[in-house]
Amino acid sequence: MKSGKMLIASRGYTSVGVAELCDHAGVRKGSFYYFFPSKSELAVAVIDSFWQDFDESLTLALEADLSPLARIEAFLDQIFVRHRDTCRSTGNVRGCLLGNLTLELSATENEIRQCLADALGRFGQRLAATISEAMEVGELPKGDADLLADELVAYVEGMILLAKARNDASVIERLRSGALALLGGPRRARRSRARN
Amino acid sequence: MKSGKMLIASRGYTSVGVAELCDHAGVRKGSFYYFFPSKSELAVAVIDSFWQDFDESLTLALEADLSPLARIEAFLDQIFVRHRDTCRSTGNVRGCLLGNLTLELSATENEIRQCLADALGRFGQRLAATISEAMEVGELPKGDADLLADELVAYVEGMILLAKARNDASVIERLRSGALALLGGPRRARRSRARN
Repeated sequence: MKSGKMLIASRGYTSVGVAELCDHAGVRKGSFYYFFPSKSELAVAVIDSFWQDFDESLTLALEADLSPLARIEAFLDQIFVRHRDTCRSTGNVRGCLLGNLTLELSATENEIRQCLADALGRFGQRLAATISEAMEVGELPKGDADLLADELVAYVEGMILLAKARNDASVIERLRSGALALLGGPRRARRSRARN
Repeated sequence: MKSGKMLIASRGYTSVGVAELCDHAGVRKGSFYYFFPSKSELAVAVIDSFWQDFDESLTLALEADLSPLARIEAFLDQIFVRHRDTCRSTGNVRGCLLGNLTLELSATENEIRQCLADALGRFGQRLAATISEAMEVGELPKGDADLLADELVAYVEGMILLAKARNDASVIERLRSGALALLGGPRRARRSRARN
């Protein structure tokens, strides 16, 4: 599983073969198919595992002892730092596993697509709850928190896509300003000097 | 080329083999390699051809006889209509070829990544010119048109990603409202009844 996650995160789903997965993990093909009757079941397990890690980092940011809007900003900064660090250590902006697999596979692998749609939906729900709180305390204008959360998920995934196309994580550093505009709040850039 | 474009647009790059491409196009492998010494050169040609078609549709929307902001709105509506129509005819939201290949390949295929980054850059430049015009006539608040265009490209690609994950083109119908918020303009939904 760990091998699958690493290989799929760095190279995508289709280009990684079962033989290579088994070599990397040091297991025999028979064992692989015992746990994952098909490669797509491995993909689903990899997505679930990615979601669990991601959900933990969402919790860290969205349940911090800050105002609701400051928690959303902390989450956006955290996304940038994560991608910048991966780029520093691997030389590549790898992108978000959910976004990568969505655009690689959704039109052909329905089971995987559904799993990705669910994870992106949970991502949106987590954000919607905090957006609602920000509306209640007057940090954001009242509106449809679920729709705005959807738009924010799309914007985050789109900025990561642009960073990956340019292989330049600094694109994601600008996430916060546009995200706040999308939510109807004040544009505020990341204080990069203080936090880098 | 036409076969390559169709197969790669519907299934991605890695999963389409050269033998299948040749079968689909009715050519022999030798002829394929005469024109495209490697599969990645086909991908570059496919991206160029996609860009030419897309640039034509951008010109249609962005040079129409409307106010600058109305031209941007027309372009956003056109994106929705294009994806809705593809979904109606194929049963799938296929996504944007540039976005799909970016997230499938950027971390591993540097030549293709550069070609995608260039196309996304040209897309941004086209939008930036019209955003600047909208600022000049007071339809949008003054700001950095290049940065805003980048954010708009990211948002468009992200909303298409979400639509692909859900296999539901109607997600893209909401593009206009969030895009206007991002640019600092008034949120305005698409008038779907009048135009569908």
